[in-house]
Amino acid sequence: MRVIVIGRGTVGSAVQKLLGESGHEAVVVSRSSGGLRADISDSKSLKELFERVGPFDAVACAAANVFRRELSQTAREQWAQSIQSKGMGQINVVRAALPHIADGGSFTLVSGVLSIEFMHAGTIGTTINHLVEGFVRGAAVELPRGVRINCVSPTVLTESVAYHAYFAGFTPVPAREVALAYLRAMVTPMTGRILKLHKTDS
Amino acid sequence: MRVIVIGRGTVGSAVQKLLGESGHEAVVVSRSSGGLRADISDSKSLKELFERVGPFDAVACAAANVFRRELSQTAREQWAQSIQSKGMGQINVVRAALPHIADGGSFTLVSGVLSIEFMHAGTIGTTINHLVEGFVRGAAVELPRGVRINCVSPTVLTESVAYHAYFAGFTPVPAREVALAYLRAMVTPMTGRILKLHKTDS
Repeated sequence: MRVIVIGRGTVGSAVQKLLGESGHEAVVVSRSSGGLRADISDSKSLKELFERVGPFDAVACAAANVFRRELSQTAREQWAQSIQSKGMGQINVVRAALPHIADGGSFTLVSGVLSIEFMHAGTIGTTINHLVEGFVRGAAVELPRGVRINCVSPTVLTESVAYHAYFAGFTPVPAREVALAYLRAMVTPMTGRILKLHKTDS
Repeated sequence: MRVIVIGRGTVGSAVQKLLGESGHEAVVVSRSSGGLRADISDSKSLKELFERVGPFDAVACAAANVFRRELSQTAREQWAQSIQSKGMGQINVVRAALPHIADGGSFTLVSGVLSIEFMHAGTIGTTINHLVEGFVRGAAVELPRGVRINCVSPTVLTESVAYHAYFAGFTPVPAREVALAYLRAMVTPMTGRILKLHKTDS
Protein backbone atom coordinates (compact mmCIF):
# COMPACT_ATOMS: atom_id res chain seq x y z
CA MET A 1 0.00 0.00 0.00
CA ARG A 2 0.95 3.62 -0.49
CA VAL A 3 -0.34 5.46 2.57
CA ILE A 4 -0.63 9.19 3.18
CA VAL A 5 0.17 9.74 6.87
CA ILE A 6 -0.97 13.15 8.09
CA GLY A 7 0.88 14.30 11.18
CA ARG A 8 4.48 13.95 12.30
CA GLY A 9 3.79 13.74 16.06
CA THR A 10 4.21 10.68 18.28
CA VAL A 11 1.35 8.73 16.66
CA GLY A 12 2.11 9.79 13.07
CA SER A 13 5.76 8.83 13.49
CA ALA A 14 4.84 5.43 14.95
CA VAL A 15 2.45 4.77 12.04
CA GLN A 16 5.16 5.76 9.56
CA LYS A 17 7.70 3.41 11.21
CA LEU A 18 5.29 0.47 11.39
CA LEU A 19 4.24 0.89 7.75
CA GLY A 20 7.91 0.86 6.72
CA GLU A 21 8.59 -2.32 8.72
CA SER A 22 5.49 -3.94 7.16
CA GLY A 23 6.56 -3.35 3.57
CA HIS A 24 4.26 -0.42 2.87
CA GLU A 25 5.14 3.07 1.66
CA ALA A 26 4.35 5.94 4.04
CA VAL A 27 4.10 9.43 2.57
CA VAL A 28 4.25 11.78 5.54
CA VAL A 29 2.50 15.14 5.44
CA SER A 30 2.88 17.74 8.15
CA ARG A 31 1.74 21.28 8.79
CA SER A 32 5.14 22.65 9.66
CA SER A 33 8.02 20.34 8.74
CA GLY A 34 9.30 18.14 5.91
CA GLY A 35 8.81 18.32 2.17
CA LEU A 36 5.07 17.68 1.93
CA ARG A 37 3.02 20.19 3.87
CA ALA A 38 -0.68 20.73 4.43
CA ASP A 39 -2.81 22.23 7.16
CA ILE A 40 -5.92 20.13 7.81
CA SER A 41 -7.79 23.23 8.95
CA ASP A 42 -7.29 24.67 5.45
CA SER A 43 -9.40 22.91 2.77
CA LYS A 44 -7.46 24.54 -0.04
CA SER A 45 -4.12 23.18 1.15
CA LEU A 46 -5.68 19.69 1.39
CA LYS A 47 -7.11 19.90 -2.12
CA GLU A 48 -3.68 20.88 -3.49
CA LEU A 49 -1.99 18.10 -1.52
CA PHE A 50 -4.16 15.29 -2.88
CA GLU A 51 -3.97 16.65 -6.42
CA ARG A 52 -0.17 16.52 -6.46
CA VAL A 53 0.68 13.55 -4.21
CA GLY A 54 0.02 10.83 -6.80
CA PRO A 55 -1.96 7.57 -6.39
CA PHE A 56 -2.56 6.25 -2.87
CA ASP A 57 -4.45 3.44 -1.16
CA ALA A 58 -5.02 4.79 2.31
CA VAL A 59 -4.98 7.93 4.43
CA ALA A 60 -4.00 7.78 8.10
CA CYS A 61 -4.84 10.97 9.93
CA ALA A 62 -2.90 11.55 13.14
CA ALA A 63 -3.12 15.33 13.38
CA ALA A 64 -5.34 16.48 16.19
CA ASN A 65 -5.44 19.65 18.26
CA VAL A 66 -8.16 20.62 20.71
CA PHE A 67 -8.18 23.13 23.55
CA ARG A 68 -8.32 22.01 27.16
CA ARG A 69 -10.25 24.60 29.12
CA GLU A 70 -12.97 24.67 31.78
CA LEU A 71 -16.33 24.74 30.04
CA SER A 72 -17.51 27.97 31.65
CA GLN A 73 -14.24 29.63 30.56
CA THR A 74 -14.17 28.38 26.97
CA ALA A 75 -14.04 31.10 24.35
CA ARG A 76 -15.70 31.09 20.97
CA GLU A 77 -12.31 31.02 19.30
CA GLN A 78 -11.22 27.88 21.17
CA TRP A 79 -14.32 26.03 20.05
CA ALA A 80 -13.89 27.25 16.48
CA GLN A 81 -10.22 26.28 16.26
CA SER A 82 -10.85 22.83 17.79
CA ILE A 83 -13.62 22.15 15.29
CA GLN A 84 -11.53 23.43 12.40
CA SER A 85 -8.58 21.24 13.36
CA LYS A 86 -9.44 17.82 14.81
CA GLY A 87 -13.14 17.99 13.84
CA MET A 88 -13.89 19.46 10.42
CA GLY A 89 -10.16 19.20 9.63
CA GLN A 90 -10.38 15.41 9.46
CA ILE A 91 -13.68 15.58 7.58
CA ASN A 92 -12.01 17.92 5.10
CA VAL A 93 -9.19 15.40 4.66
CA VAL A 94 -11.76 12.77 3.64
CA ARG A 95 -13.64 15.14 1.34
CA ALA A 96 -10.44 16.32 -0.36
CA ALA A 97 -8.91 12.84 -0.73
CA LEU A 98 -12.07 11.01 -1.83
CA PRO A 99 -11.83 11.85 -5.56
CA HIS A 100 -8.23 10.53 -5.60
CA ILE A 101 -8.08 7.51 -3.26
CA ALA A 102 -7.93 4.02 -4.83
CA ASP A 103 -11.05 1.85 -5.10
CA GLY A 104 -11.37 -0.12 -1.86
CA GLY A 105 -8.98 2.29 -0.14
CA SER A 106 -9.33 3.31 3.47
CA PHE A 107 -9.38 6.31 5.74
CA THR A 108 -8.34 6.05 9.37
CA LEU A 109 -9.12 9.06 11.56
CA VAL A 110 -8.33 9.73 15.20
CA SER A 111 -10.59 10.49 18.18
CA GLY A 112 -9.56 9.67 21.77
CA VAL A 113 -10.49 8.43 25.22
CA LEU A 114 -12.37 11.64 26.09
CA SER A 115 -15.24 10.25 24.01
CA ILE A 116 -16.17 8.08 26.97
CA GLU A 117 -14.25 9.56 29.91
CA PHE A 118 -15.45 13.00 30.94
CA MET A 119 -12.89 15.28 32.52
CA HIS A 120 -12.51 18.65 34.09
CA ALA A 121 -11.71 21.00 31.19
CA GLY A 122 -12.41 18.15 28.79
CA THR A 123 -15.73 19.09 27.22
CA ILE A 124 -14.24 20.47 24.01
CA GLY A 125 -12.24 17.25 23.61
CA THR A 126 -15.28 15.07 24.30
CA THR A 127 -17.41 17.05 21.85
CA ILE A 128 -14.88 16.95 19.01
CA ASN A 129 -14.16 13.24 19.49
CA HIS A 130 -17.88 12.49 19.25
CA LEU A 131 -18.10 14.59 16.10
CA VAL A 132 -15.27 12.57 14.51
CA GLU A 133 -16.72 9.21 15.55
CA GLY A 134 -20.17 10.23 14.32
CA PHE A 135 -18.72 11.21 10.96
CA VAL A 136 -16.90 7.87 10.67
CA ARG A 137 -20.04 5.86 11.44
CA GLY A 138 -22.18 7.88 9.05
CA ALA A 139 -19.61 8.07 6.25
CA ALA A 140 -18.94 4.32 6.34
CA VAL A 141 -22.41 3.81 4.86
CA GLU A 142 -22.06 6.52 2.22
CA LEU A 143 -18.55 6.19 0.83
CA PRO A 144 -18.48 5.04 -2.82
CA ARG A 145 -16.25 2.49 -4.65
CA GLY A 146 -15.74 0.25 -1.62
CA VAL A 147 -13.77 2.95 0.18
CA ARG A 148 -13.72 2.28 3.93
CA ILE A 149 -13.39 4.52 6.97
CA ASN A 150 -12.50 3.77 10.58
CA CYS A 151 -11.32 5.63 13.65
CA VAL A 152 -8.60 4.95 16.20
CA SER A 153 -9.34 6.18 19.72
CA PRO A 154 -6.16 6.23 21.83
CA THR A 155 -5.89 6.99 25.51
CA VAL A 156 -2.90 9.01 26.74
CA LEU A 157 0.34 7.76 25.16
CA THR A 158 3.14 6.20 27.20
CA GLU A 159 5.49 8.56 25.40
CA SER A 160 3.46 11.73 26.16
CA VAL A 161 4.75 12.16 29.70
CA ALA A 162 3.63 15.81 29.89
CA TYR A 163 -0.02 14.66 29.74
CA HIS A 164 0.21 11.90 32.35
CA ALA A 165 -0.78 14.18 35.26
CA TYR A 166 -3.97 15.27 33.48
CA PHE A 167 -4.77 11.62 32.77
CA ALA A 168 -4.03 10.45 36.31
CA GLY A 169 -5.62 7.04 36.88
CA PHE A 170 -5.48 6.11 33.19
CA THR A 171 -3.29 3.28 31.85
CA PRO A 172 -1.12 4.83 29.11
CA VAL A 173 -0.76 3.03 25.77
CA PRO A 174 2.47 2.83 23.75
CA ALA A 175 2.34 4.67 20.42
CA ARG A 176 3.26 1.41 18.67
CA GLU A 177 0.03 -0.21 19.84
CA VAL A 178 -1.91 2.73 18.46
CA ALA A 179 -0.01 2.36 15.17
CA LEU A 180 -0.96 -1.33 15.05
CA ALA A 181 -4.62 -0.31 15.23
CA TYR A 182 -4.13 2.05 12.27
CA LEU A 183 -2.53 -0.79 10.30
CA ARG A 184 -5.31 -3.19 11.26
CA ALA A 185 -7.93 -0.68 10.10
CA MET A 186 -6.12 -0.42 6.74
CA VAL A 187 -5.44 -4.07 5.94
CA THR A 188 -8.64 -5.76 7.14
CA PRO A 189 -12.07 -5.23 5.51
CA MET A 190 -13.53 -3.35 8.50
CA THR A 191 -15.47 -0.13 8.04
CA GLY A 192 -17.33 2.17 10.42
CA ARG A 193 -15.36 0.83 13.40
CA ILE A 194 -14.02 2.81 16.37
CA LEU A 195 -10.90 1.02 17.60
CA LYS A 196 -10.53 1.86 21.27
CA LEU A 197 -6.98 1.75 22.61
CA HIS A 198 -8.14 2.09 26.20
CA LYS A 199 -9.99 0.18 28.85
CA THR A 200 -13.74 0.67 28.86
CA ASP A 201 -15.60 0.23 32.13
CA SER A 202 -19.03 1.15 30.80
CA MET B 1 -40.46 26.63 36.48
CA ARG B 2 -39.85 29.41 34.00
CA VAL B 3 -38.51 27.75 30.84
CA ILE B 4 -36.93 29.36 27.79
CA VAL B 5 -38.09 27.30 24.79
CA ILE B 6 -35.97 27.91 21.71
CA GLY B 7 -37.76 27.04 18.49
CA ARG B 8 -41.35 27.38 17.35
CA GLY B 9 -41.47 24.28 15.15
CA THR B 10 -43.40 21.09 15.82
CA VAL B 11 -41.28 20.06 18.80
CA GLY B 12 -40.92 23.54 20.31
CA SER B 13 -44.68 24.10 20.07
CA ALA B 14 -45.41 20.74 21.74
CA VAL B 15 -42.97 21.55 24.56
CA GLN B 16 -44.62 24.97 25.01
CA LYS B 17 -48.09 23.38 25.17
CA LEU B 18 -47.08 20.65 27.62
CA LEU B 19 -45.32 23.13 29.92
CA GLY B 20 -48.47 25.25 30.01
CA GLU B 21 -50.64 22.23 30.84
CA SER B 22 -48.18 21.26 33.58
CA GLY B 23 -48.31 24.63 35.35
CA HIS B 24 -44.99 25.94 34.10
CA GLU B 25 -44.23 29.14 32.22
CA ALA B 26 -42.85 28.76 28.69
CA VAL B 27 -41.03 31.73 27.18
CA VAL B 28 -40.78 30.97 23.48
CA VAL B 29 -37.89 32.30 21.42
CA SER B 30 -37.74 31.98 17.66
CA ARG B 31 -35.47 33.09 14.88
CA SER B 32 -38.16 34.57 12.71
CA SER B 33 -41.49 35.01 14.48
CA GLY B 34 -43.00 36.28 17.74
CA GLY B 35 -41.81 38.92 20.17
CA LEU B 36 -38.62 37.28 21.46
CA ARG B 37 -36.17 36.54 18.71
CA ALA B 38 -32.70 35.03 18.60
CA ASP B 39 -30.67 33.09 16.07
CA ILE B 40 -28.76 30.22 17.72
CA SER B 41 -26.09 30.46 15.02
CA ASP B 42 -25.36 34.02 16.23
CA SER B 43 -23.65 34.15 19.65
CA LYS B 44 -24.29 37.87 20.01
CA SER B 45 -28.06 37.51 19.60
CA LEU B 46 -28.03 34.73 22.26
CA LYS B 47 -26.04 36.86 24.69
CA GLU B 48 -28.52 39.71 24.29
CA LEU B 49 -31.46 37.33 24.70
CA PHE B 50 -30.33 35.89 28.02
CA GLU B 51 -29.34 39.30 29.37
CA ARG B 52 -32.83 40.70 28.82
CA VAL B 53 -35.13 37.71 29.32
CA GLY B 54 -35.11 37.77 33.14
CA PRO B 55 -34.64 34.85 35.57
CA PHE B 56 -35.24 31.32 34.29
CA ASP B 57 -34.90 27.75 35.52
CA ALA B 58 -34.48 25.79 32.32
CA VAL B 59 -33.69 26.06 28.64
CA ALA B 60 -35.29 23.69 26.14
CA CYS B 61 -33.63 23.87 22.74
CA ALA B 62 -35.72 22.60 19.84
CA ALA B 63 -34.11 24.49 16.98
CA ALA B 64 -32.16 22.28 14.65
CA ASN B 65 -31.24 22.54 11.01
CA VAL B 66 -28.84 20.31 9.14
CA PHE B 67 -28.36 19.68 5.44
CA ARG B 68 -29.28 16.36 3.88
CA ARG B 69 -26.89 15.69 1.03
CA GLU B 70 -24.86 12.77 -0.30
CA LEU B 71 -21.48 12.78 1.41
CA SER B 72 -19.46 13.01 -1.81
CA GLN B 73 -21.61 15.99 -2.85
CA THR B 74 -21.50 17.92 0.43
CA ALA B 75 -20.11 21.42 0.18
CA ARG B 76 -18.01 23.23 2.72
CA GLU B 77 -20.83 25.72 3.30
CA GLN B 78 -23.35 22.97 4.14
CA TRP B 79 -21.05 21.53 6.76
CA ALA B 80 -20.34 24.98 8.19
CA GLN B 81 -24.00 25.99 8.39
CA SER B 82 -25.03 22.68 9.97
CA ILE B 83 -22.33 23.01 12.63
CA GLN B 84 -23.23 26.66 13.28
CA SER B 85 -26.91 25.82 13.67
CA LYS B 86 -27.71 22.50 15.35
CA GLY B 87 -24.11 21.88 16.52
CA MET B 88 -22.25 24.91 17.85
CA GLY B 89 -25.59 26.76 17.91
CA GLN B 90 -26.82 24.64 20.80
CA ILE B 91 -23.43 24.82 22.52
CA ASN B 92 -23.61 28.60 22.18
CA VAL B 93 -27.06 28.55 23.80
CA VAL B 94 -25.56 26.82 26.84
CA ARG B 95 -22.54 29.12 26.98
CA ALA B 96 -24.68 32.26 26.70
CA ALA B 97 -27.34 31.12 29.20
CA LEU B 98 -24.98 29.66 31.81
CA PRO B 99 -24.22 32.94 33.64
CA HIS B 100 -27.97 33.59 34.00
CA ILE B 101 -29.67 30.21 34.61
CA ALA B 102 -30.86 29.43 38.17
CA ASP B 103 -28.82 27.18 40.46
CA GLY B 104 -29.85 23.59 39.79
CA GLY B 105 -31.40 24.63 36.48
CA SER B 106 -31.33 22.46 33.40
CA PHE B 107 -30.55 22.51 29.71
CA THR B 108 -32.23 20.12 27.30
CA LEU B 109 -30.75 19.96 23.81
CA VAL B 110 -31.85 17.99 20.75
CA SER B 111 -30.04 15.41 18.62
CA GLY B 112 -31.92 12.73 16.64
CA VAL B 113 -32.16 9.17 15.41
CA LEU B 114 -29.39 9.67 12.82
CA SER B 115 -26.94 9.27 15.73
CA ILE B 116 -27.45 5.54 15.49
CA GLU B 117 -29.15 4.99 12.14
CA PHE B 118 -26.94 5.74 9.15
CA MET B 119 -28.66 6.88 6.00
CA HIS B 120 -28.00 7.81 2.44
CA ALA B 121 -27.30 11.56 2.52
CA GLY B 122 -27.35 11.43 6.32
CA THR B 123 -23.69 11.82 7.27
CA ILE B 124 -23.94 15.51 8.14
CA GLY B 125 -26.91 14.73 10.40
CA THR B 126 -25.12 11.81 12.05
CA THR B 127 -22.01 13.90 12.62
CA ILE B 128 -23.83 16.88 14.13
CA ASN B 129 -25.99 14.67 16.37
CA HIS B 130 -22.86 13.01 17.73
CA LEU B 131 -21.31 16.41 18.34
CA VAL B 132 -24.36 17.48 20.37
CA GLU B 133 -24.51 14.24 22.37
CA GLY B 134 -20.78 14.40 23.07
CA PHE B 135 -21.13 17.96 24.33
CA VAL B 136 -24.00 16.95 26.62
CA ARG B 137 -22.06 14.04 28.11
CA GLY B 138 -18.92 16.12 28.64
CA ALA B 139 -20.69 19.24 29.90
CA ALA B 140 -22.75 17.27 32.45
CA VAL B 141 -19.53 16.73 34.40
CA GLU B 142 -18.35 20.33 34.13
CA LEU B 143 -21.42 22.51 34.68
CA PRO B 144 -21.26 24.52 37.93
CA ARG B 145 -23.94 25.23 40.60
CA GLY B 146 -25.81 21.96 40.13
CA VAL B 147 -26.87 22.95 36.63
CA ARG B 148 -27.81 19.86 34.61
CA ILE B 149 -27.82 19.05 30.90
CA ASN B 150 -29.54 16.35 28.88
CA CYS B 151 -30.44 15.63 25.30
CA VAL B 152 -33.62 14.43 23.60
CA SER B 153 -33.11 12.29 20.49
CA PRO B 154 -36.35 12.02 18.49
CA THR B 155 -36.94 9.88 15.46
CA VAL B 156 -39.09 11.29 12.65
CA LEU B 157 -42.24 12.94 14.04
CA THR B 158 -45.72 11.65 13.32
CA GLU B 159 -46.65 15.22 12.38
CA SER B 160 -43.73 15.68 9.94
CA VAL B 161 -45.35 13.87 7.04
CA ALA B 162 -42.98 15.39 4.49
CA TYR B 163 -40.09 13.46 6.05
CA HIS B 164 -41.80 10.07 6.26
CA ALA B 165 -40.55 8.90 2.87
CA TYR B 166 -36.92 9.59 3.79
CA PHE B 167 -37.47 7.70 7.05
CA ALA B 168 -39.22 4.75 5.42
CA GLY B 169 -39.16 1.78 7.80
CA PHE B 170 -39.00 3.96 10.92
CA THR B 171 -41.83 4.15 13.47
CA PRO B 172 -42.72 7.85 13.80
CA VAL B 173 -43.14 9.38 17.26
CA PRO B 174 -45.81 11.96 18.17
CA ALA B 175 -44.40 15.38 19.09
CA ARG B 176 -46.16 15.15 22.44
CA GLU B 177 -44.04 12.12 23.42
CA VAL B 178 -40.94 14.07 22.53
CA ALA B 179 -42.22 16.97 24.66
CA LEU B 180 -42.73 14.58 27.58
CA ALA B 181 -39.06 13.63 27.36
CA TYR B 182 -38.09 17.32 27.53
CA LEU B 183 -40.27 17.74 30.63
CA ARG B 184 -38.83 14.60 32.23
CA ALA B 185 -35.30 15.88 31.64
CA MET B 186 -36.24 19.16 33.35
CA VAL B 187 -38.11 17.92 36.41
CA THR B 188 -36.07 14.85 37.41
CA PRO B 189 -32.46 15.03 38.70
CA MET B 190 -30.97 13.39 35.62
CA THR B 191 -27.89 14.83 33.93
CA GLY B 192 -25.73 13.70 31.00
CA ARG B 193 -28.54 11.54 29.64
CA ILE B 194 -29.53 11.01 26.00
CA LEU B 195 -33.29 10.29 25.93
CA LYS B 196 -33.94 8.24 22.82
CA LEU B 197 -37.43 8.57 21.37
CA HIS B 198 -36.89 5.72 18.95
CA LYS B 199 -36.38 2.00 18.91
CA THR B 200 -32.79 0.83 19.18
CA ASP B 201 -31.88 -2.48 17.62
CA SER B 202 -28.17 -2.34 18.43
